[in-house]
Amino acid sequence: MKKFINDVDDILVESLTGFGRAHADLVEISFDPTFVRRKTPTPAGKVVLISGGGSGHEPLHAGFVGHGMLDAACPGHVFTSPTPDQMIAAAAAVDGGAGTLWIVKNYSGDVMNFEMAAEMAEGEHATVLIVDDVAVENSSFTVGRRGVAGTMIAEKMLGAGAEAGLDLAALKALGDKVAGQTRSMGVAFSSCIVPAAGSPTFTLGDNEMEMGVGIHGEPGRRRVPLASAHDIADEMTGAILQDLAPKAGQQILLHVNGFGGTPLMELYLMYDEAAQILEKRGLKVARSLVGNYTTSLEMAGCSITVTTLDEQLTELWDAPVHTPALRWGR
Amino acid sequence: MKKFINDVDDILVESLTGFGRAHADLVEISFDPTFVRRKTPTPAGKVVLISGGGSGHEPLHAGFVGHGMLDAACPGHVFTSPTPDQMIAAAAAVDGGAGTLWIVKNYSGDVMNFEMAAEMAEGEHATVLIVDDVAVENSSFTVGRRGVAGTMIAEKMLGAGAEAGLDLAALKALGDKVAGQTRSMGVAFSSCIVPAAGSPTFTLGDNEMEMGVGIHGEPGRRRVPLASAHDIADEMTGAILQDLAPKAGQQILLHVNGFGGTPLMELYLMYDEAAQILEKRGLKVARSLVGNYTTSLEMAGCSITVTTLDEQLTELWDAPVHTPALRWGR
Repeated sequence: MKKFINDVDDILVESLTGFGRAHADLVEISFDPTFVRRKTPTPAGKVVLISGGGSGHEPLHAGFVGHGMLDAACPGHVFTSPTPDQMIAAAAAVDGGAGTLWIVKNYSGDVMNFEMAAEMAEGEHATVLIVDDVAVENSSFTVGRRGVAGTMIAEKMLGAGAEAGLDLAALKALGDKVAGQTRSMGVAFSSCIVPAAGSPTFTLGDNEMEMGVGIHGEPGRRRVPLASAHDIADEMTGAILQDLAPKAGQQILLHVNGFGGTPLMELYLMYDEAAQILEKRGLKVARSLVGNYTTSLEMAGCSITVTTLDEQLTELWDAPVHTPALRWGR
Repeated sequence: MKKFINDVDDILVESLTGFGRAHADLVEISFDPTFVRRKTPTPAGKVVLISGGGSGHEPLHAGFVGHGMLDAACPGHVFTSPTPDQMIAAAAAVDGGAGTLWIVKNYSGDVMNFEMAAEMAEGEHATVLIVDDVAVENSSFTVGRRGVAGTMIAEKMLGAGAEAGLDLAALKALGDKVAGQTRSMGVAFSSCIVPAAGSPTFTLGDNEMEMGVGIHGEPGRRRVPLASAHDIADEMTGAILQDLAPKAGQQILLHVNGFGGTPLMELYLMYDEAAQILEKRGLKVARSLVGNYTTSLEMAGCSITVTTLDEQLTELWDAPVHTPALRWGR
């Protein structure tokens, strides 16, 4: 295992310390329990958005803490759910008196721990569950569909809604709407290596890929021979469209997300393929995001995410955001 | 070779097409000859900044075309210099009547082709040569030192200077100043695969790393056993400081750059190590940038870049920028 680490047990603390130092203008890091919060206090009356999950998906979630997105993020160890004490401490630290919206990717451990935190934390709260991955129903760590790269789209749109003053009930409804209009599917060319394990999570043959892979390297739909970018994009967008069933002429947000080990050059090529296929199917790619936003450490591969847009969601996407990993408009 | 491609011969065109489509609000792509330019016309009297080089280092350079950075970028094939006709066409397309500043990484092919273009293109021009890599004097593709991740720092600061109305002579002097105050060093854990070659550029043992590696995987100083993040950061910052010889109390910009295949989590950990070491040496880390900005396809590894700051350079760094890969202040 070749990684930039000192001791496997220290990577989360050391990495977060560096993250906090590099972005000291935007965030503050707390340890024991561990969470990342906005540096600026929550304005009174603003609903706070808190997400979290296992580490190893950076910039998700800590990279999205800041104006127009999250108020706090709770990172667990690599690919391990954060614990309720982290979530409770984060909620107490950023509370604005108007309630907490938890944004949770659908993995059994995350769901259980966020539920426990929600029961124990003070104040009003609601939860938006992200289930955008169309690849499989149920999987290694999930009952139902997995939450993957669509999570950051929900975090962006909900963050804009919270800044605009929506109350908790309105944000919960908005979150369910965004989650309901978002679908993803991924593919992997190689495994990542979880530091504590020290060896690849899975192995693929020289000419194999894992179609429908999860963001922890968990199995997808099937292992198939390597195909052209066009054919891969065709299968992924096909699965998404079959499930999402958008109307002709529908405006969409197209997000091509790298898993960490695939060059940007290839991600833009895949974006081009996906955009062409979707437009041939009568959709209009109105907004785009290409890059490594929801990663699986150094896994080679990518996912495609489609969100159907309307005027409200487009406005929320375009609203100013200022976080370590996503910034526009201010 | 597992890559998202259709045909090896088409990757540059297909990837640039996707890039142009995803960032249609900011850039325009021309083919035959190939270059990327800002969508907005150059204001009369503004010096234009043009860079370029082999592809495979994305987001460098095309990702830095836009307000506050480059006016145009000329991408060659993967790890291959662009040709003079690309540069001449780019210069003609963006000319603002106040001259052209070429920003050139020091590789023999790039230097030769930019020199030919400069001789043939119309109007006043000057060239800033980037030679920030302290690892080696001369190398596979270079006489003298290589230009690496410091290039984007020069592009950012020069871009701000050009927006502020500096004339060609002042920008040339500024570029030489930034280049003279910037040093980098890299390390690789694995090789990338150049698509046209189809196999790794070099091989490393399971416990080996290439200290001082170039951004094309070309050899560095020595092949050594894997070490802790602390020891790696210590060797890299040591080499940089020995050459840069900053005064105690000096403010610096610290840039930890991923080569494409290393998780963000590890880059922040390396940033923390480097920042600690530099501050113990009496320096003040005043500005920071962590992420994949000057890549070598999917190579695992990173580089550390230090630029000594003064009031002018800090102001130029902080000035608004709006490009596909770097954005703040607007």
